[in-house]
Amino acid sequence: MTAREPDRLADLPTPSLVLDETRLDRNIATMAAFAAERGLALRPHVKTHKSVEIARRQVAAGAAGITVATISEAEIFAAAGFTDIFIAYPLWLDADKTARLRRLLEAHQHGADPLLIGVDSIEGAERAAQAAAGLLHRLAVLVEVDSGHHRSGVEADQAGTVAAAAVSVGLDVAGVFTFPGHSYSPEGRRSAAGDEGRELASAVAALAAAGVTARIVSGGSTPSAEFADAGVLTELRPGVYVFRDAQQWELGMSGPDDIALTVHATVVSQRRDHLITDAGSKVLGVDRGSFSTGFGRLLDHPDARITALSEHHATITQVDLPAGSRITVVPNHVCIAVNLADEYTVVRDGAVIGRWPVDARGANT
Amino acid sequence: MTAREPDRLADLPTPSLVLDETRLDRNIATMAAFAAERGLALRPHVKTHKSVEIARRQVAAGAAGITVATISEAEIFAAAGFTDIFIAYPLWLDADKTARLRRLLEAHQHGADPLLIGVDSIEGAERAAQAAAGLLHRLAVLVEVDSGHHRSGVEADQAGTVAAAAVSVGLDVAGVFTFPGHSYSPEGRRSAAGDEGRELASAVAALAAAGVTARIVSGGSTPSAEFADAGVLTELRPGVYVFRDAQQWELGMSGPDDIALTVHATVVSQRRDHLITDAGSKVLGVDRGSFSTGFGRLLDHPDARITALSEHHATITQVDLPAGSRITVVPNHVCIAVNLADEYTVVRDGAVIGRWPVDARGANT
Repeated sequence: MTAREPDRLADLPTPSLVLDETRLDRNIATMAAFAAERGLALRPHVKTHKSVEIARRQVAAGAAGITVATISEAEIFAAAGFTDIFIAYPLWLDADKTARLRRLLEAHQHGADPLLIGVDSIEGAERAAQAAAGLLHRLAVLVEVDSGHHRSGVEADQAGTVAAAAVSVGLDVAGVFTFPGHSYSPEGRRSAAGDEGRELASAVAALAAAGVTARIVSGGSTPSAEFADAGVLTELRPGVYVFRDAQQWELGMSGPDDIALTVHATVVSQRRDHLITDAGSKVLGVDRGSFSTGFGRLLDHPDARITALSEHHATITQVDLPAGSRITVVPNHVCIAVNLADEYTVVRDGAVIGRWPVDARGANT
Repeated sequence: MTAREPDRLADLPTPSLVLDETRLDRNIATMAAFAAERGLALRPHVKTHKSVEIARRQVAAGAAGITVATISEAEIFAAAGFTDIFIAYPLWLDADKTARLRRLLEAHQHGADPLLIGVDSIEGAERAAQAAAGLLHRLAVLVEVDSGHHRSGVEADQAGTVAAAAVSVGLDVAGVFTFPGHSYSPEGRRSAAGDEGRELASAVAALAAAGVTARIVSGGSTPSAEFADAGVLTELRPGVYVFRDAQQWELGMSGPDDIALTVHATVVSQRRDHLITDAGSKVLGVDRGSFSTGFGRLLDHPDARITALSEHHATITQVDLPAGSRITVVPNHVCIAVNLADEYTVVRDGAVIGRWPVDARGANT
């Protein structure tokens, strides 16, 4: 962390991504305590923050390892010294990704946990085994299960077939994983966690029937974590909890006081019936749940609504502020906002204490 | 442009942003010829591509200058030697932006056209004059007019008041500008261009009534450009035309053969009723017009639909391809996709000929 000018928050160029260290540390500690209390390992998804510093704090608070989405994220975190990494994605190992996976495996520290990757098809498993030939002892796979989000992943009753095929080509099948992404709705949090537990249990049984013991049963999103079935799961992979965002706020999971990451912006234009601020879609991102009230929220003006977003303009209604006002915008989906920024401006008690790079910004291959 | 490995398109890591040079040059030439034929100056908006190389090609093809959205974009293009720059935004000149604007003005080449910025309020004009004190001869302002997009900008009949205030504090008022962003709909292209012409004419009259002659009357988006009123406007500021995108395709303005920028992606999972590809929202962006069929299009499979998008997954229906297939995805809104990438992989006749940096990626303050 390097301090440099400007060090007054009011002097910060707008729009800028601002991280409240106290809230960050509290969010990290709260989820760590929750997982420990339930007897679940915590493997936070670092695609949310893409920050080595924040991942180190998560591990220091007890995280068992980290989750990434891409080989390029794995490359960056492995180079920073992380050894227990799960690429929670059904990688298709073409020539480029095979070469990069092999470099990761070759650099893998002796005695460290194997690198974990996802598979969701027999052919994907076969390619993984070919890609890791000679290095199979440093690799393990988790079979991805579709628990209702209907994205990638096999149906639970097919998990045994994929696992058996993976074993037959020499892969270590460590278990199963799912992402209950349908938890992102007001009603969905509890029901998606129920789907997650049921489908993972079914997948574990399917593996057992194929002679494969699941030692890792991995699930969890931030909204569903509270309801995760600790009788089935062995680990949770939430991401957004470190920062919280407007989606979490609007799902009723966070108060504004839990929100650690915001965009500091300036009101540039005061029109008759709306304001325009300089934080647009190239800073906030455009993600918007069906339950969202708009394209983000104003931390200090909870009644205000962001009704439209273009690249360098957000249209704000239901609040009146003079042009030149500094405002604090809460992105709808913080993972997207972070990937748009090069660095965090870190504040403690309202004062800038330094900057942290978004180390894996753009590392999406 | 530097050549480096990999130089075969099939070896490219996915997802990657790929630029077809032949189509780019054709799109640049077509718009340049159109503007010349109408007697309109062309001042392309470089926020679309954020590329010095592409802006140079636009100027070589006859563009009179460039348009940017932010001071940080202006800094990058000024440093690259561009001298006729319009920051088409109602800048609010706080301490940070004042210091940066002054550095731009100080570096401005003797004899070059003044740096142009937008204003849409009396107070904004007053701040601009204070910010540029001692350097006012290197600055000129355009009054922003709301022609129906209802974002920033004054109503046309107020433009004279703002212009007169600007003149009274010593600013050179060069004219008026608008962004007819409501052209982004199937019916909106012609009607928004009509609104643009009418409101700009009204604003020019309001300036004249206040004793100010508008020598620049600037409008134009890519969808509305075809219908721009050459009797009122003096210049066009389209951006997306260099690449085209799925929005333009679905507005009926481009065939797939005009689309110069795509994301090369891999089908990573073949499910019963959909495919999953590795180009997600962190590569494509989430922008979606009310008229859009989905979250982008497949260039070679026009019937396919992208029905859902998460950070590293796009869900594709109405086409069946085996896992491992390479596909070519057309982003909905190319300005957003470009700002997510560090570089373009440039191809000619299907072969990689080099890479161009996205010089102003993330330059959004």
